[in-house]
Amino acid sequence: MKNISNAVIKRLPRYYRYLDELRANGVERISSGDLSRMMNVTASQIRQDLNNFGGFGQQGYGYNVNYLFEEIGSILGLDKEHRMIVVGAGNLGQAIANYANFDKRGFKIVALFDSNHELIGKKTRNGEIKDIEEVYDFVKTENIEIVALTLPKEPATEIAMKLLDCGVKAFWNFAHTDLEVPDNVIVENVHLSESLMELTYKLSEQSQVGK
Amino acid sequence: MKNISNAVIKRLPRYYRYLDELRANGVERISSGDLSRMMNVTASQIRQDLNNFGGFGQQGYGYNVNYLFEEIGSILGLDKEHRMIVVGAGNLGQAIANYANFDKRGFKIVALFDSNHELIGKKTRNGEIKDIEEVYDFVKTENIEIVALTLPKEPATEIAMKLLDCGVKAFWNFAHTDLEVPDNVIVENVHLSESLMELTYKLSEQSQVGK
Repeated sequence: MKNISNAVIKRLPRYYRYLDELRANGVERISSGDLSRMMNVTASQIRQDLNNFGGFGQQGYGYNVNYLFEEIGSILGLDKEHRMIVVGAGNLGQAIANYANFDKRGFKIVALFDSNHELIGKKTRNGEIKDIEEVYDFVKTENIEIVALTLPKEPATEIAMKLLDCGVKAFWNFAHTDLEVPDNVIVENVHLSESLMELTYKLSEQSQVGK
Repeated sequence: MKNISNAVIKRLPRYYRYLDELRANGVERISSGDLSRMMNVTASQIRQDLNNFGGFGQQGYGYNVNYLFEEIGSILGLDKEHRMIVVGAGNLGQAIANYANFDKRGFKIVALFDSNHELIGKKTRNGEIKDIEEVYDFVKTENIEIVALTLPKEPATEIAMKLLDCGVKAFWNFAHTDLEVPDNVIVENVHLSESLMELTYKLSEQSQVGK
């Protein structure tokens, strides 16, 4: 597999989302021009991005929506089931566990864990919230690949390191910290407050332009 | 103000977070070398990024932590209060409203709204959840600048367009869609499932390297 730039990888899920909508609307094929207008990116960008994976388009025909959807899904690893748990079962953890769309995409959220005794035992779509003490044995026996960390920053790195020892391969990290784990460990960060700061940067920039 | 690249803007909140931690730990000054090791970016990257805003460092002294923290905060628009509401008061909306850190940063979440009658009236840290029908009058009289959209994709664009008419300036969009609003409207997207797909892309890539 050739080395694909991060920027391209970040754009793939958006192609996937648009193709899914086209598919849902019964569209069977689309030209790169139409896709480009719909997605508000240039047609040459689309061709370049998809050429990283061998193209998929046919001159004079455009793209076969369903085929391209399946192929991008496969590139994104969505053709396999991914077993996941959520560590930290507060509102955010529960929001993630309840997000039905994940299920449709092959993300199987097997259980939620928390250290808060008011939450442990509470029923959710994904079974009762379990005690964090049980998480290490659980990931070993249940073959868990991905852990969503929806917990405060303090325990995040320590818990992540222990989970790595139990066979976890990737973290979807919502804790307000950079996990200090070895470089080869897959970490995808969602730093919510940082995204909100990008928004206020733009607000602040806009108000200065207006002056 | 000169034109700052998106990549730089995306890195600023992370500087802010590290400087906040240094400050909390009583560190008064730091060299770009130490900051670079801590943040795992090159010292020249740090210097380049900060030079966009006039530098801040002094040869042989490094950076004054508190001063740099305040300056970056000000660049990010965090020196002002931002009045916000949350539209969609499910788990995700409530998670955002409950995130205490936002308050500390000047984000004032004034109210939550929902269309679900099982949620309307429910008490939260930010008052009772209000009926979505009231949101348009509310944003006019309460001078709301930012709206967090934590709702399904279907009504998102329509609600956003109406809120724009009522004076809202920016959207923090969690709906699984690109809002179709005019180009000059500030939209910061958090597409959770897309970030999870970037993670599985990397998992899939890693498993192929292993073969």
